[in-house]
Amino acid sequence: MKGKWHIGLIRVVTQEDPALRELHGNRIMEYFPELEVESRCIPDQPEGIHSDELKDLAVPKILRLAESFHGKDALIVSCADDPGVPELQKLLSIPVVGAGSSTALLARRYGPRAGILGITDYAPSPYGSMFGEGLINLGRPQGVNSTLDLMTPEGRAAVENLALRLKDAGAQSIALACTGMSTIGVAGPLRRLTGLPVVDPVLAEGLCALYECLNTAYGK
Amino acid sequence: MKGKWHIGLIRVVTQEDPALRELHGNRIMEYFPELEVESRCIPDQPEGIHSDELKDLAVPKILRLAESFHGKDALIVSCADDPGVPELQKLLSIPVVGAGSSTALLARRYGPRAGILGITDYAPSPYGSMFGEGLINLGRPQGVNSTLDLMTPEGRAAVENLALRLKDAGAQSIALACTGMSTIGVAGPLRRLTGLPVVDPVLAEGLCALYECLNTAYGK
Repeated sequence: MKGKWHIGLIRVVTQEDPALRELHGNRIMEYFPELEVESRCIPDQPEGIHSDELKDLAVPKILRLAESFHGKDALIVSCADDPGVPELQKLLSIPVVGAGSSTALLARRYGPRAGILGITDYAPSPYGSMFGEGLINLGRPQGVNSTLDLMTPEGRAAVENLALRLKDAGAQSIALACTGMSTIGVAGPLRRLTGLPVVDPVLAEGLCALYECLNTAYGK
Repeated sequence: MKGKWHIGLIRVVTQEDPALRELHGNRIMEYFPELEVESRCIPDQPEGIHSDELKDLAVPKILRLAESFHGKDALIVSCADDPGVPELQKLLSIPVVGAGSSTALLARRYGPRAGILGITDYAPSPYGSMFGEGLINLGRPQGVNSTLDLMTPEGRAAVENLALRLKDAGAQSIALACTGMSTIGVAGPLRRLTGLPVVDPVLAEGLCALYECLNTAYGK
């Protein structure tokens, strides 16, 4: 085995607290000991991205932040909407991985009909690109507008209710569509509740980054 | 990090030589140090699978061989046709991963149009299931009937020629469709030749097995 792969990770929400900033990166290093992750946040966007307007605001910041990393084997944009990912894949010579396309990809492993479970009524674009008509979108969990709402008993009950309705609607998997779903660790409980595979965005983006590193290295 | 994940790997070709039998498993352990792979071959099938008849012959042997593994976290059927995989996924309580569905999945990361490059004129079923009309199949490399033919200068030239024709036909990636392509390590050279992502079946099946292990463990 070579040493570690060096991954730059872009958070699309401004986090002043280092523990919060490093949360996704630390999770990825726990899953994949061969990855060394350095996390940086875009500036002046404490609410992150939960609308098209906020996405448009974030993309130029993401492109600038990507330039600040040096000596990385791959970059991750840790957001289910893959903001800036198509642009960066053209601009950079290293692989660029988004949480949304990674999650949608792994959900596709279980068949062409996936249920999407996030905190927006619209499906982030990578999910539609992957599944097309096969994507089952029943909107967001009732009363949930942000990841904070997920931590209340009512929010948690709404998420569970939506997961069961996605199953009833024919979903072969549940593709989580917000990295906040990783933060609260809801994939395992939802799998036990529904019996369906549930794809965690932070695990998925880490796996795809590892794949890209291996694929590049072993092809040399 | 927990200890290693224990993976059982089924070779669908009878190999008496331990070095040949362990070839895929050793490659996977090189890629993924967190996996410990034990390889076993089906009996009495020295030609492996390169027709539907040989697949039908192999499936019952694969199902029996799967029962002989104990204490594994996941099983891999190391063949691009995923023989026995749908059956085993119903029979077993642990995840079952096939080389074909894993390769097709990772190729899908690069878009809905993939070129298939194997040693049969027919596309193994997982590739069609993933890509449907988006699968570009121009048949096998000229003069290549087995993995042995890949090791001659003529065979190698035919593989390279086919890869370039797949690119010309609009392929966004090349999905290798025979684990013998992993054995000869052709993914890297083809990527450099074509500029396209080229998916290696043994790397792909190892990655999907790791994913299933992580997903199961962290969901508990």
